[in-house]
Amino acid sequence: MSTESFLDRLCVVLVATRNPLNIGAAARALINFGFSQLRVVNPYSVAFQNAKSAVGASAVLKRAEEYSSVADSIADCSLVVGTTAVRERKLDPPLRTLQQAAPLVRRRMRTGRVALLFGSEKRGLSNQDFSHCHCLLQIPTHPEQPSMNLGQAVAVCLYEISRGTRLSLTSERQTSATAADLERLAGSFLDALRTSGYATKGRPDEEVLRRLVRRLKLSGADAQLLLGMLRQMRWKMSNPE
Amino acid sequence: MSTESFLDRLCVVLVATRNPLNIGAAARALINFGFSQLRVVNPYSVAFQNAKSAVGASAVLKRAEEYSSVADSIADCSLVVGTTAVRERKLDPPLRTLQQAAPLVRRRMRTGRVALLFGSEKRGLSNQDFSHCHCLLQIPTHPEQPSMNLGQAVAVCLYEISRGTRLSLTSERQTSATAADLERLAGSFLDALRTSGYATKGRPDEEVLRRLVRRLKLSGADAQLLLGMLRQMRWKMSNPE
Repeated sequence: MSTESFLDRLCVVLVATRNPLNIGAAARALINFGFSQLRVVNPYSVAFQNAKSAVGASAVLKRAEEYSSVADSIADCSLVVGTTAVRERKLDPPLRTLQQAAPLVRRRMRTGRVALLFGSEKRGLSNQDFSHCHCLLQIPTHPEQPSMNLGQAVAVCLYEISRGTRLSLTSERQTSATAADLERLAGSFLDALRTSGYATKGRPDEEVLRRLVRRLKLSGADAQLLLGMLRQMRWKMSNPE
Repeated sequence: MSTESFLDRLCVVLVATRNPLNIGAAARALINFGFSQLRVVNPYSVAFQNAKSAVGASAVLKRAEEYSSVADSIADCSLVVGTTAVRERKLDPPLRTLQQAAPLVRRRMRTGRVALLFGSEKRGLSNQDFSHCHCLLQIPTHPEQPSMNLGQAVAVCLYEISRGTRLSLTSERQTSATAADLERLAGSFLDALRTSGYATKGRPDEEVLRRLVRRLKLSGADAQLLLGMLRQMRWKMSNPE
């Protein structure tokens, strides 16, 4: 286990999936979020074999392991989480939202393998499948249509579980315009407006322009750009052809 | 706008989508997370019409509106967010992770419509599409395979945006400028610059101005104010004493 990476410790287990396109979509979601371990239990078998051996099948799909029972598929996992769209069923393992379950999953991945189970497109996981689970996970969806497409559900779960496992984008903001930049800009703006005849009888005044240019939340570069544009327009108004 | 619900203020815009299955998958994700507004720009048209009229098509898909340009599809939106899998490109609008962008999207939905743009399966959004966007959003994916399946990307974005929304609309902030306001302003600005002699040999072009006015983060009132000022200066340049 020492040679595998952290993200290899999550096993996505698809139980009794019918449509091989959904297995392919699940594989793609694993790759998108840096995971690698896909397992299938009793898939619609011919279709699964065809999908695996198809030209262009991803490495994750090609290496997907097939099992004949849920018990076998999760034997090496120390935490087993089932997914469900159903709100409440008695006797089920404890139900958590995806947001609640994700930190737990990440914590357990530090010390061992975690299985995340998805049921068939039509019926989801069975009570029998649930009996293998330590807890159930639910994506918070709208009560009128809680059931998600399988590939989309896998993508959303992996997005949330992978959250915070990598660094976020380094935000390189542009430097904001200084007060001096803004003062020059407001002055030049007012001058152009007066020349144009827009500003009359002292309205708008300096204060109005000063507030206006501050509301624009300009970068230093954009303040320079606007200043140049205004100066050219101001010049043109006084120097027509 | 008062009769629509908060979640109706997010418009998912699919630009140049080829595969109608992906439009159906996007529609399903909207429904799963309680959203309703789906717009498509130049889809592969016959397939789209067939998908819309198919037996079993969802209400969201049936009501999806078709547009012939990105500009038209977002005209009533005050925040336009483009999605991208590409890491960095110069001159693009500011790039945020999905986690960073989601609170911003929810905040702007309190006062107006927000558009979330998804490009075609093969190429994503174009530079031309980007020029309509206030910011870009990226789902944090693995560098080796950053590009997600369209339906899965829509689901992940809507999952994150719907996070923690069951709040009612309360704060009536200043309404932000709509895309149509900004388009008028950019056009008027360019016209004034051309007349002034600042713009020559096609530079700056429409795209540059469109990006500039978006960076200003204008309210609707300020956009009107600037438009009036520019028109007056434009008039004065052509009508000196």
